[in-house]
Amino acid sequence: MTDKKTTLWGGASVMHPALAALSESLAQDLPLADADLRASAAYARGLARCGVLTNDEAETLAKGLMALRQELTEGTWLPTDVEDIHAAIESELTRRHGDVGAKLHTGRSRNDQVATAFRLTARERVDGLIAGIKAVQAALVSRAEDEIDTLMPSYTHMQRAQPIRLAHWLMAHFFMLERDVERMKSARAMANVLPLGSGAVSGHPFGIDRAWLAKELGFARPTDNSLDAVGDRDYVCDVIYACSMAALHLSRLAEEMVVWSTAEFAFLRWPDALATGSSLMPNKKNPDLAELVRGQAGPMLGDLTSILVLVKGLPVSYQRDLQEDKPPLWRATGRLLTSLQAMEAACLHVAFDRVRMTSALSDDILATEVADRLVARGIPFRKAHHAVAAIMGRVRDGKDDFKTLAKASDLPEPLVQADFDKLDMAAAIERRTAIGGTAKSAVEAQLQRARALLASV
Amino acid sequence: MTDKKTTLWGGASVMHPALAALSESLAQDLPLADADLRASAAYARGLARCGVLTNDEAETLAKGLMALRQELTEGTWLPTDVEDIHAAIESELTRRHGDVGAKLHTGRSRNDQVATAFRLTARERVDGLIAGIKAVQAALVSRAEDEIDTLMPSYTHMQRAQPIRLAHWLMAHFFMLERDVERMKSARAMANVLPLGSGAVSGHPFGIDRAWLAKELGFARPTDNSLDAVGDRDYVCDVIYACSMAALHLSRLAEEMVVWSTAEFAFLRWPDALATGSSLMPNKKNPDLAELVRGQAGPMLGDLTSILVLVKGLPVSYQRDLQEDKPPLWRATGRLLTSLQAMEAACLHVAFDRVRMTSALSDDILATEVADRLVARGIPFRKAHHAVAAIMGRVRDGKDDFKTLAKASDLPEPLVQADFDKLDMAAAIERRTAIGGTAKSAVEAQLQRARALLASV
Amino acid sequence: MTDKKTTLWGGASVMHPALAALSESLAQDLPLADADLRASAAYARGLARCGVLTNDEAETLAKGLMALRQELTEGTWLPTDVEDIHAAIESELTRRHGDVGAKLHTGRSRNDQVATAFRLTARERVDGLIAGIKAVQAALVSRAEDEIDTLMPSYTHMQRAQPIRLAHWLMAHFFMLERDVERMKSARAMANVLPLGSGAVSGHPFGIDRAWLAKELGFARPTDNSLDAVGDRDYVCDVIYACSMAALHLSRLAEEMVVWSTAEFAFLRWPDALATGSSLMPNKKNPDLAELVRGQAGPMLGDLTSILVLVKGLPVSYQRDLQEDKPPLWRATGRLLTSLQAMEAACLHVAFDRVRMTSALSDDILATEVADRLVARGIPFRKAHHAVAAIMGRVRDGKDDFKTLAKASDLPEPLVQADFDKLDMAAAIERRTAIGGTAKSAVEAQLQRARALLASV
Amino acid sequence: MTDKKTTLWGGASVMHPALAALSESLAQDLPLADADLRASAAYARGLARCGVLTNDEAETLAKGLMALRQELTEGTWLPTDVEDIHAAIESELTRRHGDVGAKLHTGRSRNDQVATAFRLTARERVDGLIAGIKAVQAALVSRAEDEIDTLMPSYTHMQRAQPIRLAHWLMAHFFMLERDVERMKSARAMANVLPLGSGAVSGHPFGIDRAWLAKELGFARPTDNSLDAVGDRDYVCDVIYACSMAALHLSRLAEEMVVWSTAEFAFLRWPDALATGSSLMPNKKNPDLAELVRGQAGPMLGDLTSILVLVKGLPVSYQRDLQEDKPPLWRATGRLLTSLQAMEAACLHVAFDRVRMTSALSDDILATEVADRLVARGIPFRKAHHAVAAIMGRVRDGKDDFKTLAKASDLPEPLVQADFDKLDMAAAIERRTAIGGTAKSAVEAQLQRARALLASV
Repeated sequence: MTDKKTTLWGGASVMHPALAALSESLAQDLPLADADLRASAAYARGLARCGVLTNDEAETLAKGLMALRQELTEGTWLPTDVEDIHAAIESELTRRHGDVGAKLHTGRSRNDQVATAFRLTARERVDGLIAGIKAVQAALVSRAEDEIDTLMPSYTHMQRAQPIRLAHWLMAHFFMLERDVERMKSARAMANVLPLGSGAVSGHPFGIDRAWLAKELGFARPTDNSLDAVGDRDYVCDVIYACSMAALHLSRLAEEMVVWSTAEFAFLRWPDALATGSSLMPNKKNPDLAELVRGQAGPMLGDLTSILVLVKGLPVSYQRDLQEDKPPLWRATGRLLTSLQAMEAACLHVAFDRVRMTSALSDDILATEVADRLVARGIPFRKAHHAVAAIMGRVRDGKDDFKTLAKASDLPEPLVQADFDKLDMAAAIERRTAIGGTAKSAVEAQLQRARALLASV
Repeated sequence: MTDKKTTLWGGASVMHPALAALSESLAQDLPLADADLRASAAYARGLARCGVLTNDEAETLAKGLMALRQELTEGTWLPTDVEDIHAAIESELTRRHGDVGAKLHTGRSRNDQVATAFRLTARERVDGLIAGIKAVQAALVSRAEDEIDTLMPSYTHMQRAQPIRLAHWLMAHFFMLERDVERMKSARAMANVLPLGSGAVSGHPFGIDRAWLAKELGFARPTDNSLDAVGDRDYVCDVIYACSMAALHLSRLAEEMVVWSTAEFAFLRWPDALATGSSLMPNKKNPDLAELVRGQAGPMLGDLTSILVLVKGLPVSYQRDLQEDKPPLWRATGRLLTSLQAMEAACLHVAFDRVRMTSALSDDILATEVADRLVARGIPFRKAHHAVAAIMGRVRDGKDDFKTLAKASDLPEPLVQADFDKLDMAAAIERRTAIGGTAKSAVEAQLQRARALLASV
Repeated sequence: MTDKKTTLWGGASVMHPALAALSESLAQDLPLADADLRASAAYARGLARCGVLTNDEAETLAKGLMALRQELTEGTWLPTDVEDIHAAIESELTRRHGDVGAKLHTGRSRNDQVATAFRLTARERVDGLIAGIKAVQAALVSRAEDEIDTLMPSYTHMQRAQPIRLAHWLMAHFFMLERDVERMKSARAMANVLPLGSGAVSGHPFGIDRAWLAKELGFARPTDNSLDAVGDRDYVCDVIYACSMAALHLSRLAEEMVVWSTAEFAFLRWPDALATGSSLMPNKKNPDLAELVRGQAGPMLGDLTSILVLVKGLPVSYQRDLQEDKPPLWRATGRLLTSLQAMEAACLHVAFDRVRMTSALSDDILATEVADRLVARGIPFRKAHHAVAAIMGRVRDGKDDFKTLAKASDLPEPLVQADFDKLDMAAAIERRTAIGGTAKSAVEAQLQRARALLASV
Repeated sequence: MTDKKTTLWGGASVMHPALAALSESLAQDLPLADADLRASAAYARGLARCGVLTNDEAETLAKGLMALRQELTEGTWLPTDVEDIHAAIESELTRRHGDVGAKLHTGRSRNDQVATAFRLTARERVDGLIAGIKAVQAALVSRAEDEIDTLMPSYTHMQRAQPIRLAHWLMAHFFMLERDVERMKSARAMANVLPLGSGAVSGHPFGIDRAWLAKELGFARPTDNSLDAVGDRDYVCDVIYACSMAALHLSRLAEEMVVWSTAEFAFLRWPDALATGSSLMPNKKNPDLAELVRGQAGPMLGDLTSILVLVKGLPVSYQRDLQEDKPPLWRATGRLLTSLQAMEAACLHVAFDRVRMTSALSDDILATEVADRLVARGIPFRKAHHAVAAIMGRVRDGKDDFKTLAKASDLPEPLVQADFDKLDMAAAIERRTAIGGTAKSAVEAQLQRARALLASV
């Protein structure tokens, strides 16, 4: 009932295969390897600084670790048949450099070691995601610049509401994504604190200079309490939460793209390279890209649930349950990056059908304008609204026509020619000049702010 | 901006790499290959039965498919560089057998084809899980038989409550798991309905005999409506839900094992092959197995969330979002099987410390017995309870001792010697003879029912 | 730092207000009152049957409990200022009937008592939900009977796919809901097992006849193990899971209703009584009903998450965390019932625009038919598909017209007049005669099966 | 099939009762009333500033709104029989002040109005929660100051690991909660942006000064895009996520409190006012407070799931699904506040049993010290660790005793008296002086930082 693996703790030389299967983490630890090697090199130097190693020993270790890093990148060294990547590194180091390798782990535990490599890697993934979000945002800005004069209906409840600029719609998605950038930055800050030097649980027994270590590895500062540090996975939660929100935002954009791709809307056409067909129906050209992006919201919330439920009810300090912390982060960050890249391509390359959009500007979406005309004549808004709404009911039932409104005897005041002159789509749009509105000046202000945000770090 | 892959639909010869990355599903489809080959062979014969293929063509296809199945199992054929496993199979078949391969997909769509292979595979995974649950149950029964005379405290709120048999605790977990068997059977029944022959969405255009197909592939019956059939993923939800409940149950058992493994409880000891140590602290022998099993509840609920959120708000019939249906099922079923195997090993091999358990039977857990003695003398239970509770408060504060109860002037009736004679752990246990109680006869009845359940299919 | 409430256990006469606030459960327990009164009456009689009470005492209690039930229904008795509803009932009973009231709780604990009332109530809620689902199904069947000759496009990926009958679409939703009926029945069976007589944790000390009790209260059988019985909340999970799946199904129907209500689709119109408007825009008539139903999927999955996470990692037997089991069940069942009633009204009263549906049957959705025509001439399907797909690309680009297909030099065989004669929507539909297809006979078979399912219990 | 309510839009005078039941939101909107009244007063003044109202009209409205606010607080005005609170306010205002009331909604929509009141209220709830968290933190600091000299074992995997100060454990929870303060502040910043003036979807048609409005209502700035503003619920997600993380943290503390309250650990005793008993077992004194707090993690994650799933796949701008945004926020913030208050009481009033803690400091937790002694003699750590681990195996098996280590022939170097002199708990603790360690100086540094954080805003 046993399975032989190299273990760092050496207590039992054999392990029941059922535990080995459950315990195995090499595949999910591999993405940590690079960060672990860098953090170990810094740690070796830290041990020298507090007198546990000689400088020579520290340099031997640091160089050995950097050599492994090089070989790992080149694929010339690949750890196998070990419990986890950290055991693999220490074993190989000891095989190559003898006793000095066996000194690396002095005062360190897998608890603080893994948390350090994980935070470093999470931080780098977040940086990649911020770049990915900004790429989608840049595509939106670029399209918005082109489409500032394209008019279309806005929708609420998926019913035509009021006329807007297509650029206004594009910028809505820009600003939605801007919040994701903010959230990613908060998550990054949460990750960017150094646990190394916390030992297994009670602190470092050789007085290592943790402030120096933090600086060396680019962390903002060391963690405040060792017991907390080894069991804290808030940064994992925060990163996956930030990914989840971004995925939800992309699902909203994707939903609109799917609807706009229908024959009935036909606002949007996909280039061949971004669409797919059917294995059976030769007529199909499907918006799979948008559907797949929309579909990522499910597994994304799944990964968020995974990590949140994982920590529920665990005592502080390290519990082995926490081994399940890595797969959801790898999946969530990888999935979001792929989605962002696909959505960037979509935002750059889909064709908007300006004719279809314009022709969807049916008269009824000027109803608010009519009410506002009456307001301008002193009719209280609520009364104007009720009167116009009553007439619109007749328009919807096909009993009447929007243009007969002027003569409508049930209007509090009949419209005059001057009113009708202002009842057009462009005029309705240009009235919305307040901050965040769809008037040209207001959209241009949005674009200006967007360009500034894209340029900032 | 393109990536070349073999596609079944042949519309665009090139695909944008960002879409290719998002769309790629070969890895997650591989577990479907075996079922797809079997279902395709049945489908070929079905096409012959309705006159679309000749019998010779059908047999060529069926044999070709079985040959691929053999090679796949042996590892001599491995599909690469294709969009999905289904495209790979059809391509290879056509490469080997020419035009007849290109006829296999007549009247079939990936929509009904994939759903069929997925249901077949899900059904088989469930069968494996039922066996895995029963193996844990068998281990519990076997230990319960050994420990029927071991006494220990039961706990509510993790506070000592009343004395029970250890076998009673073991059987609690047995019956908890029995509900998982039931749930797995319901999920299996939900999966065991055949979608093949639904075409892309509107039904089969060549009148294939779906009842025959269902029988041929071991399904209970064909699905009722083609539109529903291609977009239904209820069976995936049901299987993952059943896995989730089982994982939650195992997390409860695991939690108790972790607590019982503490130095403070010390009810349970792990054999070396089922425990692990620390990379830093040489004193540690950790119940990692139980922690890892407990930890699976997080990702399991994550996978459940993934699939449930995925289908939210999707129109009926197929939407590409559904491609994300497979990874959560593979993960959930794989993870549960591993957990069950680990827990089976744990249940078989952990050592129970009977001495520690017995010594935890402190007098205070006979307090209910004292109240019941008073009830036997005609004191209304609530009054008896209040009186005993008041005394117990003094016991807890260390001001008094349980044995002085008889003389307690604040008891509604003083206890007499006959009462004290009955105030022991075994007597308290043996009073619980009602169904489901902890008396020996009641536990033996549980064991008998358990053995019958294990023997049933 | 205290708050005075009537407690059953009487240990501390005062409770810190912060604990009182957290602990308070009267509001969430109120829906249990009716079941608790009935179960308590049965329990009193059970106590008489095992000699703990006299028959007179049992009848006094039973009648007292039924009187309270009557008063509670009539609103003449309302429990206030107590910890929970169960304390309220026992206190009031004792106030009215003296010592005999104080005897009711003999051998019983809140642990088995509450679980019993909860299971009874859950069972009744499920019965109401099954009726609610069947009402929606009946509405779908009734509309399907009316719309069997209405033709429309089916959609996959929200792209027009193949022609179907509107009745076929309606029946897709019928069969989707049928799985909810099945799931509700499974959940009901899981709830329908009696925990009463399990005591606090170790069983009943006076040998109550639990089989009799189960029968008396309409349960299928008593639970098997007292430790499991007091901490088991599987039935809560199962009911909420069944509600969640139904809510997800309704969200799919609702999504289609929202999309079909757009000006662009215009397949569906809402009667005034089922639609709402805008506070600002007089033109709006919004499909709020469908949106609200779709929106229930979110909180529904929230309630499912609540209960599943709650039980994670809890030891068997009762832990106080479980107090949080009730609100999610009340919310989930209440919300689903409201959604079903709204959806029943929608299914009965929305108007389908047959003209719009028919006019959406654009020629391109006959492309599969063209490929099948070629198949009938012996062209392997894959070749036929590729040829037609290439032509359809030209049709989509507006360079060609579907009707010129016959002359297309890149077809493997040119179409002849006999082919074109068969290329119409009705013919395409009528070919789908296999089980589950959209041919009239196949849809009628669905209707027949549906009526039989509705008639069954 | 109708139900009469006052609606703002006036389109249909009657509503189907099933839609009315689904649509009803008065109860869940009530907590918005105060903020809505304040925001409406500011809006009225904003309308005057852009010339839509006269100053007199604006002041009439503002005063009328403040009067309603006063009456609402005093309970002298209670809205009933209306669709939502916003309709109630406008109706009442119009009833009291005539046409000027009917002018309030000019240029405003429920979409931007409700979002504004919701953000205001969310912001205030977050402020309350930050105060609640700080109160728990203050309690932890106060106890840590008292217990700085109490020694106890730390645990990993719930196995005794290394000696620490109890104050170190208390501070672990302090710093865990500090991250919640950070997260609350981020969520507050996300909420603190003004949507008012976005109109229904396309912007404000009368050029209201949104920067002024934002300042007037204490918001950091107005939202950037009207389409985004009316459909954005990120702030709701962020607040509930912050609540969820805090609840998870409290669940970890609560779990430890439950375990420490067992008879087996007995590290912690509850004052009567913070504990409860059993309805059946007179011996019980249960840590219900901690269990209830732990149990909140389930419904908390449920509320998070509710809101996240809700927004999945919704087009930008307002969809009615969003009505379900409020209940999860009310529940999550209310539940967390109650939990924090309970936990503050617990942290202040539980008794720590210093004797039990000290007696749990068994020799084996000095094993790391032995290894470190060997390291001090030049033995590579890994070798030292393996040697000590082998001996500890014998100690655990009861074959050996920790004190015989010195003579152990399998140590790489025998320990000498100087080593043994340093092998005590206090010495082991005092070596952990690095930042975040458990040495007295390091814990005092934590306390100092904690006091500074508490003092900051």
